[in-house]
Amino acid sequence: MPQPKSLKNLVQELSKLPGIGPRTATRYAFHLLRKSDEEVELLAEAIHNLKRETKICKNCFNVSENDLCEFCLNPKRDRSIICIVEEAINIPVIENTKKFSGLYHVLGGTIKPHEGAGPEKLNIEQMIERIKKSEVKEIIIATNPNIEGETTAMYLVKRLKEFNLKITHLARGLSTGSDLEYADEMTVSHALEERKEFK
Amino acid sequence: MPQPKSLKNLVQELSKLPGIGPRTATRYAFHLLRKSDEEVELLAEAIHNLKRETKICKNCFNVSENDLCEFCLNPKRDRSIICIVEEAINIPVIENTKKFSGLYHVLGGTIKPHEGAGPEKLNIEQMIERIKKSEVKEIIIATNPNIEGETTAMYLVKRLKEFNLKITHLARGLSTGSDLEYADEMTVSHALEERKEFK
Repeated sequence: MPQPKSLKNLVQELSKLPGIGPRTATRYAFHLLRKSDEEVELLAEAIHNLKRETKICKNCFNVSENDLCEFCLNPKRDRSIICIVEEAINIPVIENTKKFSGLYHVLGGTIKPHEGAGPEKLNIEQMIERIKKSEVKEIIIATNPNIEGETTAMYLVKRLKEFNLKITHLARGLSTGSDLEYADEMTVSHALEERKEFK
Repeated sequence: MPQPKSLKNLVQELSKLPGIGPRTATRYAFHLLRKSDEEVELLAEAIHNLKRETKICKNCFNVSENDLCEFCLNPKRDRSIICIVEEAINIPVIENTKKFSGLYHVLGGTIKPHEGAGPEKLNIEQMIERIKKSEVKEIIIATNPNIEGETTAMYLVKRLKEFNLKITHLARGLSTGSDLEYADEMTVSHALEERKEFK
Protein backbone atom coordinates (compact mmCIF):
# COMPACT_ATOMS: atom_id res chain seq x y z
CA MET A 1 0.00 0.00 0.00
CA PRO A 2 1.16 3.57 -0.56
CA GLN A 3 3.20 4.79 2.40
CA PRO A 4 5.87 7.47 2.81
CA LYS A 5 9.33 6.26 1.82
CA SER A 6 10.82 7.24 5.18
CA LEU A 7 8.26 5.05 6.92
CA LYS A 8 8.77 2.08 4.58
CA ASN A 9 12.50 2.44 4.97
CA LEU A 10 12.34 2.35 8.78
CA VAL A 11 9.97 -0.63 8.73
CA GLN A 12 12.47 -2.43 6.48
CA GLU A 13 15.41 -1.65 8.78
CA LEU A 14 13.52 -2.59 11.96
CA SER A 15 12.43 -5.88 10.36
CA LYS A 16 16.08 -6.92 10.30
CA LEU A 17 16.11 -7.20 14.10
CA PRO A 18 15.67 -10.76 15.39
CA GLY A 19 12.04 -11.79 15.79
CA ILE A 20 10.62 -8.56 14.34
CA GLY A 21 8.32 -9.03 11.38
CA PRO A 22 6.93 -6.25 9.18
CA ARG A 23 3.80 -5.96 11.35
CA THR A 24 5.71 -5.32 14.59
CA ALA A 25 8.15 -3.07 12.74
CA THR A 26 5.22 -1.02 11.45
CA ARG A 27 3.86 -0.75 14.98
CA TYR A 28 7.21 0.53 16.27
CA ALA A 29 7.51 3.00 13.37
CA PHE A 30 4.05 4.44 14.02
CA HIS A 31 4.83 4.59 17.73
CA LEU A 32 7.90 6.68 16.93
CA LEU A 33 5.87 8.90 14.61
CA ARG A 34 3.68 9.87 17.55
CA LYS A 35 6.71 10.78 19.72
CA SER A 36 8.40 14.16 19.78
CA ASP A 37 11.36 14.86 17.49
CA GLU A 38 13.63 14.88 20.56
CA GLU A 39 12.53 11.46 21.78
CA VAL A 40 12.99 9.93 18.33
CA GLU A 41 16.40 11.56 18.02
CA LEU A 42 17.49 10.00 21.34
CA LEU A 43 16.94 6.54 19.87
CA ALA A 44 18.67 7.38 16.57
CA GLU A 45 21.63 8.79 18.53
CA ALA A 46 21.82 5.76 20.84
CA ILE A 47 22.05 3.44 17.82
CA HIS A 48 24.52 5.75 16.10
CA ASN A 49 26.77 5.75 19.19
CA LEU A 50 26.50 2.04 19.92
CA LYS A 51 29.34 0.68 17.82
CA ARG A 52 31.31 3.91 17.97
CA GLU A 53 31.54 3.75 21.76
CA THR A 54 31.51 0.03 22.45
CA LYS A 55 34.76 -1.91 22.39
CA ILE A 56 35.54 -5.59 22.80
CA CYS A 57 37.61 -6.56 25.85
CA LYS A 58 41.08 -7.70 24.75
CA ASN A 59 41.20 -10.34 27.46
CA CYS A 60 37.76 -11.95 27.54
CA PHE A 61 35.96 -10.54 24.43
CA ASN A 62 33.09 -9.15 26.48
CA VAL A 63 31.64 -5.79 25.39
CA SER A 64 33.44 -2.94 27.06
CA GLU A 65 33.95 0.79 27.23
CA ASN A 66 37.72 0.41 27.44
CA ASP A 67 40.37 -2.00 26.18
CA LEU A 68 39.61 -4.26 29.13
CA CYS A 69 36.08 -4.85 30.40
CA GLU A 70 34.91 -4.05 33.91
CA PHE A 71 35.15 -7.68 35.00
CA CYS A 72 38.74 -8.09 33.85
CA LEU A 73 39.67 -4.74 35.44
CA ASN A 74 37.89 -5.44 38.74
CA PRO A 75 40.41 -6.61 41.40
CA LYS A 76 37.58 -8.09 43.45
CA ARG A 77 36.70 -10.73 40.85
CA ASP A 78 38.05 -14.21 41.48
CA ARG A 79 40.77 -14.82 38.89
CA SER A 80 40.94 -18.56 39.62
CA ILE A 81 37.67 -19.34 37.85
CA ILE A 82 36.57 -18.55 34.28
CA CYS A 83 33.09 -19.00 32.92
CA ILE A 84 33.04 -19.61 29.15
CA VAL A 85 29.93 -18.29 27.39
CA GLU A 86 28.88 -18.29 23.73
CA GLU A 87 28.03 -14.59 23.52
CA ALA A 88 28.50 -11.48 25.67
CA ILE A 89 24.70 -11.31 26.03
CA ASN A 90 24.90 -14.45 28.19
CA ILE A 91 26.98 -12.66 30.84
CA PRO A 92 24.14 -10.63 32.42
CA VAL A 93 22.16 -13.86 32.86
CA ILE A 94 24.97 -15.33 34.96
CA GLU A 95 25.65 -12.03 36.76
CA ASN A 96 22.03 -11.63 37.80
CA THR A 97 22.24 -14.81 39.87
CA LYS A 98 24.94 -13.17 42.05
CA LYS A 99 26.39 -16.69 42.45
CA PHE A 100 29.48 -16.15 40.36
CA SER A 101 32.34 -13.79 41.04
CA GLY A 102 34.96 -15.07 38.61
CA LEU A 103 35.94 -13.87 35.14
CA TYR A 104 34.39 -14.64 31.76
CA HIS A 105 35.50 -15.69 28.33
CA VAL A 106 33.26 -15.00 25.34
CA LEU A 107 33.62 -17.52 22.52
CA GLY A 108 31.79 -15.40 19.96
CA GLY A 109 29.52 -18.23 18.82
CA THR A 110 29.57 -22.00 18.63
CA ILE A 111 30.84 -24.75 16.43
CA LYS A 112 28.07 -25.39 13.87
CA PRO A 113 28.83 -28.72 12.21
CA HIS A 114 25.89 -28.42 9.77
CA GLU A 115 26.98 -25.00 8.57
CA GLY A 116 30.62 -26.01 8.34
CA ALA A 117 31.56 -23.51 11.07
CA GLY A 118 34.52 -25.01 12.93
CA PRO A 119 36.22 -23.85 16.12
CA GLU A 120 38.77 -21.65 14.31
CA LYS A 121 36.47 -18.61 14.22
CA LEU A 122 35.84 -18.76 17.97
CA ASN A 123 38.03 -17.12 20.60
CA ILE A 124 39.41 -20.48 21.68
CA GLU A 125 43.15 -20.02 21.04
CA GLN A 126 42.95 -16.77 22.99
CA MET A 127 41.36 -18.70 25.84
CA ILE A 128 44.16 -21.29 25.80
CA GLU A 129 46.74 -18.48 25.92
CA ARG A 130 44.86 -16.90 28.81
CA ILE A 131 44.85 -20.15 30.76
CA LYS A 132 48.57 -20.68 30.15
CA LYS A 133 49.39 -17.24 31.52
CA SER A 134 47.06 -17.20 34.53
CA GLU A 135 46.36 -18.83 37.88
CA VAL A 136 42.99 -20.26 36.75
CA LYS A 137 41.87 -23.42 38.56
CA GLU A 138 38.32 -24.00 37.29
CA ILE A 139 36.59 -23.52 33.94
CA ILE A 140 32.80 -23.48 33.84
CA ILE A 141 31.59 -24.21 30.31
CA ALA A 142 28.26 -22.37 30.08
CA THR A 143 27.42 -22.93 26.41
CA ASN A 144 23.73 -23.39 25.59
CA PRO A 145 22.17 -26.80 26.28
CA ASN A 146 21.51 -27.51 22.58
CA ILE A 147 23.37 -29.51 19.91
CA GLU A 148 25.68 -26.66 18.88
CA GLY A 149 26.40 -25.63 22.46
CA GLU A 150 27.09 -29.23 23.51
CA THR A 151 29.31 -29.87 20.48
CA THR A 152 31.31 -26.78 21.38
CA ALA A 153 31.49 -27.85 25.04
CA MET A 154 32.80 -31.27 24.04
CA TYR A 155 35.47 -29.68 21.86
CA LEU A 156 36.48 -27.34 24.69
CA VAL A 157 36.76 -30.22 27.16
CA LYS A 158 39.11 -31.99 24.73
CA ARG A 159 41.24 -28.89 24.25
CA LEU A 160 41.43 -28.20 27.99
CA LYS A 161 42.44 -31.75 28.96
CA GLU A 162 46.16 -30.93 28.81
CA PHE A 163 45.80 -28.44 31.67
CA ASN A 164 45.39 -29.42 35.28
CA LEU A 165 41.94 -27.83 35.61
CA LYS A 166 38.56 -28.57 37.09
CA ILE A 167 36.12 -28.35 34.16
CA THR A 168 32.44 -28.08 34.97
CA HIS A 169 29.16 -27.40 33.18
CA LEU A 170 25.90 -25.90 34.40
CA ALA A 171 23.52 -28.39 36.01
CA ARG A 172 20.67 -29.80 33.93
CA GLY A 173 17.19 -30.39 35.28
CA LEU A 174 13.71 -28.96 35.61
CA SER A 175 13.47 -25.19 35.42
CA THR A 176 11.98 -23.44 38.43
CA GLY A 177 8.26 -22.86 37.99
CA SER A 178 8.04 -25.33 35.12
CA ASP A 179 5.49 -28.11 34.83
CA LEU A 180 6.62 -31.74 34.70
CA GLU A 181 3.76 -32.41 32.28
CA TYR A 182 5.30 -30.13 29.66
CA ALA A 183 8.99 -30.82 30.30
CA ASP A 184 10.81 -32.48 27.41
CA GLU A 185 12.26 -35.97 27.64
CA MET A 186 15.89 -34.83 27.77
CA THR A 187 15.22 -32.44 30.63
CA VAL A 188 13.36 -35.05 32.67
CA SER A 189 16.05 -37.57 31.85
CA HIS A 190 18.73 -35.18 33.20
CA ALA A 191 16.57 -34.36 36.22
CA LEU A 192 16.30 -38.05 37.04
CA GLU A 193 19.97 -38.86 36.51
CA GLU A 194 21.09 -35.90 38.59
CA ARG A 195 18.45 -36.27 41.27
CA LYS A 196 19.38 -34.99 44.74
CA GLU A 197 18.63 -36.39 48.15
CA PHE A 198 16.41 -34.35 50.49
CA LYS A 199 18.49 -32.98 53.34
CA MET B 1 25.86 -5.26 36.14
CA PRO B 2 28.72 -3.28 34.60
CA GLN B 3 28.06 -2.64 30.92
CA PRO B 4 29.28 0.03 28.50
CA LYS B 5 27.27 3.26 28.74
CA SER B 6 26.48 3.23 25.02
CA LEU B 7 24.95 -0.22 25.37
CA LYS B 8 22.95 0.69 28.49
CA ASN B 9 21.76 3.84 26.78
CA LEU B 10 20.52 1.97 23.71
CA VAL B 11 18.80 -0.67 25.85
CA GLN B 12 17.04 2.15 27.71
CA GLU B 13 15.88 3.84 24.50
CA LEU B 14 14.74 0.58 22.88
CA SER B 15 12.80 -0.30 26.05
CA LYS B 16 10.57 2.70 25.37
CA LEU B 17 9.08 0.97 22.32
CA PRO B 18 5.72 -0.71 22.97
CA GLY B 19 6.02 -4.25 24.29
CA ILE B 20 9.83 -4.20 24.51
CA GLY B 21 11.22 -4.97 27.95
CA PRO B 22 14.87 -4.64 28.99
CA ARG B 23 15.55 -8.27 28.07
CA THR B 24 14.37 -7.94 24.47
CA ALA B 25 16.02 -4.53 24.20
CA THR B 26 19.31 -6.12 25.32
CA ARG B 27 18.89 -8.83 22.70
CA TYR B 28 18.37 -6.23 19.96
CA ALA B 29 21.34 -4.18 21.17
CA PHE B 30 23.66 -7.19 21.10
CA HIS B 31 22.29 -8.15 17.70
CA LEU B 32 23.25 -4.69 16.42
CA LEU B 33 26.69 -5.00 18.03
CA ARG B 34 27.37 -8.03 15.85
CA LYS B 35 26.36 -6.17 12.66
CA SER B 36 28.67 -4.05 10.53
CA ASP B 37 28.94 -0.29 11.17
CA GLU B 38 27.13 0.32 7.87
CA GLU B 39 24.16 -1.87 8.73
CA VAL B 40 23.76 -0.23 12.14
CA GLU B 41 24.04 3.22 10.56
CA LEU B 42 21.20 2.37 8.13
CA LEU B 43 18.86 1.86 11.08
CA ALA B 44 20.03 5.01 12.89
CA GLU B 45 19.53 7.00 9.67
CA ALA B 46 16.09 5.53 9.04
CA ILE B 47 14.97 6.63 12.51
CA HIS B 48 16.65 10.01 12.12
CA ASN B 49 14.81 10.61 8.82
CA LEU B 50 11.43 9.29 9.94
CA LYS B 51 9.88 12.44 11.39
CA ARG B 52 11.92 14.73 9.17
CA GLU B 53 10.47 13.21 6.02
CA THR B 54 7.01 12.13 7.10
CA LYS B 55 4.14 14.61 6.93
CA ILE B 56 0.52 14.37 8.01
CA CYS B 57 -2.08 14.60 5.23
CA LYS B 58 -3.99 17.89 5.51
CA ASN B 59 -7.22 16.23 4.43
CA CYS B 60 -7.38 12.88 6.23
CA PHE B 61 -4.47 13.00 8.76
CA ASN B 62 -2.88 9.86 7.37
CA VAL B 63 0.94 9.76 7.24
CA SER B 64 2.21 11.13 3.97
CA GLU B 65 5.21 12.22 1.97
CA ASN B 66 3.41 15.33 0.74
CA ASP B 67 0.74 17.75 1.98
CA LEU B 68 -1.91 15.29 0.82
CA CYS B 69 -1.54 11.52 1.19
CA GLU B 70 -1.55 9.07 -1.68
CA PHE B 71 -5.15 8.04 -1.02
CA CYS B 72 -6.45 11.61 -1.07
CA LEU B 73 -4.42 12.37 -4.20
CA ASN B 74 -5.44 9.18 -6.02
CA PRO B 75 -8.26 9.94 -8.53
CA LYS B 76 -9.16 6.23 -8.63
CA ARG B 77 -10.30 6.13 -4.97
CA ASP B 78 -14.04 6.33 -4.39
CA ARG B 79 -14.73 9.74 -2.86
CA SER B 80 -18.27 8.82 -1.81
CA ILE B 81 -17.15 6.63 1.08
CA ILE B 82 -14.88 7.47 4.03
CA CYS B 83 -13.54 4.97 6.53
CA ILE B 84 -12.81 6.53 9.92
CA VAL B 85 -9.94 4.90 11.82
CA GLU B 86 -8.34 5.65 15.19
CA GLU B 87 -4.76 5.75 13.95
CA ALA B 88 -2.93 5.77 10.62
CA ILE B 89 -1.50 2.35 11.50
CA ASN B 90 -5.02 0.92 11.05
CA ILE B 91 -5.10 1.87 7.38
CA PRO B 92 -2.78 -0.90 6.09
CA VAL B 93 -5.00 -3.47 7.84
CA ILE B 94 -8.01 -2.28 5.85
CA GLU B 95 -5.99 -1.85 2.64
CA ASN B 96 -4.63 -5.38 2.81
CA THR B 97 -8.15 -6.78 2.47
CA LYS B 98 -8.44 -5.11 -0.98
CA LYS B 99 -12.17 -4.73 -0.20
CA PHE B 100 -12.17 -0.97 0.27
CA SER B 101 -11.40 1.66 -2.32
CA GLY B 102 -12.69 4.78 -0.59
CA LEU B 103 -10.87 7.44 1.41
CA TYR B 104 -9.84 7.48 5.06
CA HIS B 105 -10.05 9.82 8.01
CA VAL B 106 -7.64 9.36 10.92
CA LEU B 107 -9.04 10.46 14.29
CA GLY B 108 -5.69 10.48 16.04
CA GLY B 109 -6.92 8.45 19.01
CA THR B 110 -10.17 7.84 20.86
CA ILE B 111 -12.32 9.42 23.50
CA LYS B 112 -11.01 8.06 26.83
CA PRO B 113 -13.64 8.82 29.47
CA HIS B 114 -11.50 7.43 32.33
CA GLU B 115 -8.55 9.61 31.41
CA GLY B 116 -10.70 12.67 30.84
CA ALA B 117 -9.77 12.73 27.15
CA GLY B 118 -12.77 14.15 25.31
CA PRO B 119 -13.43 14.40 21.58
CA GLU B 120 -11.87 17.87 21.22
CA LYS B 121 -8.34 16.51 20.69
CA LEU B 122 -9.45 14.22 17.87
CA ASN B 123 -9.70 15.25 14.23
CA ILE B 124 -13.49 15.29 14.39
CA GLU B 125 -14.26 18.91 13.48
CA GLN B 126 -12.00 18.51 10.46
CA MET B 127 -14.01 15.43 9.50
CA ILE B 128 -17.29 17.36 9.79
CA GLU B 129 -15.85 20.11 7.58
CA ARG B 130 -14.73 17.48 5.10
CA ILE B 131 -18.19 15.93 4.94
CA LYS B 132 -19.82 19.34 4.45
CA LYS B 133 -17.58 20.09 1.51
CA SER B 134 -17.65 16.70 -0.23
CA GLU B 135 -19.90 14.25 -2.05
CA VAL B 136 -19.54 11.54 0.66
CA LYS B 137 -22.47 9.12 0.97
CA GLU B 138 -21.25 6.52 3.45
CA ILE B 139 -19.10 6.65 6.56
CA ILE B 140 -17.62 3.40 7.89
CA ILE B 141 -16.65 3.82 11.53
CA ALA B 142 -13.75 1.41 12.00
CA THR B 143 -12.72 2.23 15.57
CA ASN B 144 -11.48 -0.67 17.68
CA PRO B 145 -14.09 -3.03 19.20
CA ASN B 146 -13.25 -2.03 22.79
CA ILE B 147 -14.80 0.41 25.28
CA GLU B 148 -12.86 3.43 24.07
CA GLY B 149 -13.41 2.63 20.41
CA GLU B 150 -17.13 2.04 20.95
CA THR B 151 -17.52 5.23 22.99
CA THR B 152 -15.87 7.15 20.19
CA ALA B 153 -18.05 5.42 17.58
CA MET B 154 -21.20 6.35 19.53
CA TYR B 155 -20.08 9.96 19.72
CA LEU B 156 -19.36 10.00 15.97
CA VAL B 157 -22.77 8.54 15.14
CA LYS B 158 -24.40 11.36 17.18
CA ARG B 159 -22.30 14.04 15.47
CA LEU B 160 -23.00 12.62 12.01
CA LYS B 161 -26.77 12.34 12.47
CA GLU B 162 -27.38 15.80 11.01
CA PHE B 163 -26.03 14.68 7.64
CA ASN B 164 -27.91 12.48 5.23
CA LEU B 165 -25.37 9.67 5.37
CA LYS B 166 -25.25 5.89 5.58
CA ILE B 167 -23.20 5.18 8.73
CA THR B 168 -21.85 1.65 9.15
CA HIS B 169 -19.46 -0.23 11.42
CA LEU B 170 -17.36 -3.32 10.82
CA ALA B 171 -19.16 -6.62 11.42
CA ARG B 172 -18.61 -8.40 14.74
CA GLY B 173 -18.26 -12.14 15.09
CA LEU B 174 -15.82 -15.00 15.36
CA SER B 175 -12.40 -14.37 13.84
CA THR B 176 -11.32 -16.71 11.08
CA GLY B 177 -9.26 -19.57 12.44
CA SER B 178 -10.35 -18.94 16.01
CA ASP B 179 -11.68 -21.55 18.38
CA LEU B 180 -15.19 -21.25 19.81
CA GLU B 181 -13.89 -22.71 23.05
CA TYR B 182 -11.64 -19.70 23.64
CA ALA B 183 -13.88 -16.96 22.19
CA ASP B 184 -15.05 -14.39 24.73
CA GLU B 185 -18.69 -13.95 25.66
CA MET B 186 -19.15 -10.66 23.81
CA THR B 187 -17.75 -12.09 20.58
CA VAL B 188 -19.97 -15.17 20.74
CA SER B 189 -22.91 -12.97 21.66
CA HIS B 190 -22.31 -10.81 18.55
CA ALA B 191 -21.75 -13.90 16.43
CA LEU B 192 -25.14 -15.27 17.52
CA GLU B 193 -27.05 -12.03 17.09
CA GLU B 194 -25.60 -11.43 13.66
CA ARG B 195 -25.75 -15.04 12.51
CA LYS B 196 -26.17 -15.61 8.77
CA GLU B 197 -28.18 -18.17 6.89
CA PHE B 198 -26.35 -20.75 4.76
CA LYS B 199 -26.90 -20.00 1.11
